[in-house]
Amino acid sequence: MKNVLGLRCIECNKEFPAAAGMYTCPSCGSKGGIMDVEYDYQEINRMTSREQLTQSKDFSIFRYLPFLPIHPESPRPHLRVGWSPLYKPPGLAKSLGMSNLYVKDDGQNPTASLKDRASIIAVVKAVEEKAPTVACSSTGNAASSLAGSAAAMGLKSVIFVPSRAPQGKIAQLLIFGATVISVQGSYEDAFRLSAEAIERWGWYNRNAAINPYLVEGKKTVALEIAEQLNWEVPDWVALSVGDGCTIAGVWKGFKDLYLAGWIDRLPKVLGVQSTGCSPLVDAFLEDRPWRPAEENTLADSIAVGVPRNPDKALRAVRESNGLMVAVPDEAILEAMRQLGRTSGIFGEPAGVTGMAGLKLMVEKGLIGADEKVVAIVTGNGLKDVKNAITAAGEPIKVAPSLEELIRCANFDA
Amino acid sequence: MKNVLGLRCIECNKEFPAAAGMYTCPSCGSKGGIMDVEYDYQEINRMTSREQLTQSKDFSIFRYLPFLPIHPESPRPHLRVGWSPLYKPPGLAKSLGMSNLYVKDDGQNPTASLKDRASIIAVVKAVEEKAPTVACSSTGNAASSLAGSAAAMGLKSVIFVPSRAPQGKIAQLLIFGATVISVQGSYEDAFRLSAEAIERWGWYNRNAAINPYLVEGKKTVALEIAEQLNWEVPDWVALSVGDGCTIAGVWKGFKDLYLAGWIDRLPKVLGVQSTGCSPLVDAFLEDRPWRPAEENTLADSIAVGVPRNPDKALRAVRESNGLMVAVPDEAILEAMRQLGRTSGIFGEPAGVTGMAGLKLMVEKGLIGADEKVVAIVTGNGLKDVKNAITAAGEPIKVAPSLEELIRCANFDA
Repeated sequence: MKNVLGLRCIECNKEFPAAAGMYTCPSCGSKGGIMDVEYDYQEINRMTSREQLTQSKDFSIFRYLPFLPIHPESPRPHLRVGWSPLYKPPGLAKSLGMSNLYVKDDGQNPTASLKDRASIIAVVKAVEEKAPTVACSSTGNAASSLAGSAAAMGLKSVIFVPSRAPQGKIAQLLIFGATVISVQGSYEDAFRLSAEAIERWGWYNRNAAINPYLVEGKKTVALEIAEQLNWEVPDWVALSVGDGCTIAGVWKGFKDLYLAGWIDRLPKVLGVQSTGCSPLVDAFLEDRPWRPAEENTLADSIAVGVPRNPDKALRAVRESNGLMVAVPDEAILEAMRQLGRTSGIFGEPAGVTGMAGLKLMVEKGLIGADEKVVAIVTGNGLKDVKNAITAAGEPIKVAPSLEELIRCANFDA
Repeated sequence: MKNVLGLRCIECNKEFPAAAGMYTCPSCGSKGGIMDVEYDYQEINRMTSREQLTQSKDFSIFRYLPFLPIHPESPRPHLRVGWSPLYKPPGLAKSLGMSNLYVKDDGQNPTASLKDRASIIAVVKAVEEKAPTVACSSTGNAASSLAGSAAAMGLKSVIFVPSRAPQGKIAQLLIFGATVISVQGSYEDAFRLSAEAIERWGWYNRNAAINPYLVEGKKTVALEIAEQLNWEVPDWVALSVGDGCTIAGVWKGFKDLYLAGWIDRLPKVLGVQSTGCSPLVDAFLEDRPWRPAEENTLADSIAVGVPRNPDKALRAVRESNGLMVAVPDEAILEAMRQLGRTSGIFGEPAGVTGMAGLKLMVEKGLIGADEKVVAIVTGNGLKDVKNAITAAGEPIKVAPSLEELIRCANFDA
């Protein structure tokens, strides 16, 4: 990997060579500091350019190979991860009173969430490190995406999920042939047990905050946004926040492009949580260290009371001069309806939480109605049908006769 | 539409100009004959070429605009429909003992099924014809895709579904703001009621067999397969059959390419139904007219006892020198597991029925292990979680402790 300089600890700032099996900082004691991948941007610019990219026929995250911490010749699974559509839906913009709104629909990935971007990197790295089994804990999306990528790559996967993970996500990863451990407890319990098991059995660790390479996969969503906007960086990028890894990835992506000289400014980042579980928003608003929080939200993918990547997440928002905000679950359900009704995009609750926060910030005047904003939808609503039903209500039931239909529906009105 | 010559009735073979509001043949009496769109292939070749296409940046069905029956300047919704990935999954091929197997994953569409290809054409035509409301009956996928495309286009939609349609599909279309009529009866009941309502209220008719333009949307899956294989036509294309419109679309696509001189041969088509509902397979195998059948299959999207497009479907298989076969529901569930486990693709039951039939035909020696085959996965498994759970089983439940995990799982073996 000529493009990778090494790994730098975000706690102690020490740099290390990118060695196999190194995840957290060896200097920062038993808990370990979270690491960042550092690149040689001159080397990246020798390998590729904005102009060369326009000729690329690879419409997946691997079109950005020089920005990724994998060996160019490493085997890759066949799944088409990334290059999700960036829409400019006129109905949605109108309903929000905005003039320059884009939606990046990352539900359009092989396993229907943004997490595929990280998982496909995980299985490539696992094969590079000759690990036959990959493992993680997850509220659901990281799990199913790891199981899918592992199946495509011919690896075994062991997945730890908290007991509350929705059926759709569980079904998906069982179909992918994963060994699924449903931990009767919280996400924190599932995470801890996975860490112990990974250490005991030596599996490849796909826990996103721990493994520095995964955020590099997630950052590709930012690279795509920039390219899809013809390198005209938006004013804001809005998205939901759980563990903190995705927002950290988005920020890392824009920073890498900036440091490589591919973009001339950085966007502000809006990080959104549910009021039912907002440890990072609270820390941001009160400008204090984060504290563990309850997990009382229907947006299961961001119901993370003990986020694993709080520092990178808060750093992303602060460095960008961005904002954070929490929205009630009702606003999340309303965002699902609004996005679906006005643009034909079906997001899961956590997937549309960024949208819900954006709406609030525009109403408050903290984000201007004419600013250029990209809202990232991080997962497909089909993953969580129960909450979709809650959001959407029930169909009109009629017996199969026109008279019944005329009586029950109101089409003549 | 300089590329469109007109509509030809597949019953009486008469040709008519492509007029707004004309769906079925005016000559064939009250039931109406199903129409086919006829093209001027010289005009198509004036408008585009295989070489020009390689320069196209439009990775959606609209890259094939000269092959579509819409005005080039008609407004189109923003959704990215089509250009789904064509994979060559090594694990799946190995598990089937095949050497040249491709999978076209059409679950990777905005509403997660192939039906988006037809629905996006429907809403473009509806706007061309100044209809503010679109309607259809559907076992689910056509419904949700129409609702999604309509929402993106700013149209109203009214959807008739049979009472057995899975919750995930219902939720999706409610989120898209559709008026949903759950007809307490069979698909046939829902279809009949929709036809009566469409006539009464003058909505745009997206019932696929009736509307000749929709099969033109579906045919784009064939155009993509051909282009993605660099115009080297496969020996076989395998897919599931319900109403018969999708298989008719696939065949129409290859025929259009052949008549335009873009490919030099045609593939054989394998049409697959469930043994629980196989009116077209039975008609094919016994070489007799089709008869209505029971709807006893868990593959709800192809549980169509009274198919609406039987003639086009049977014609597609026969003209191609293809085959039809029925598989039991257990084989469909096994195909879900096999596809997921070996390739990371999650299909709904009807989505993988083509795969299940292919497996049987390879075992029987009717399709050679080294033939070049494309199996189309027509819909995503997240649409029908209940059956995925049936197929996949349950996770291993453990309390959050390593001792418990060691006791319950078998990782040391």
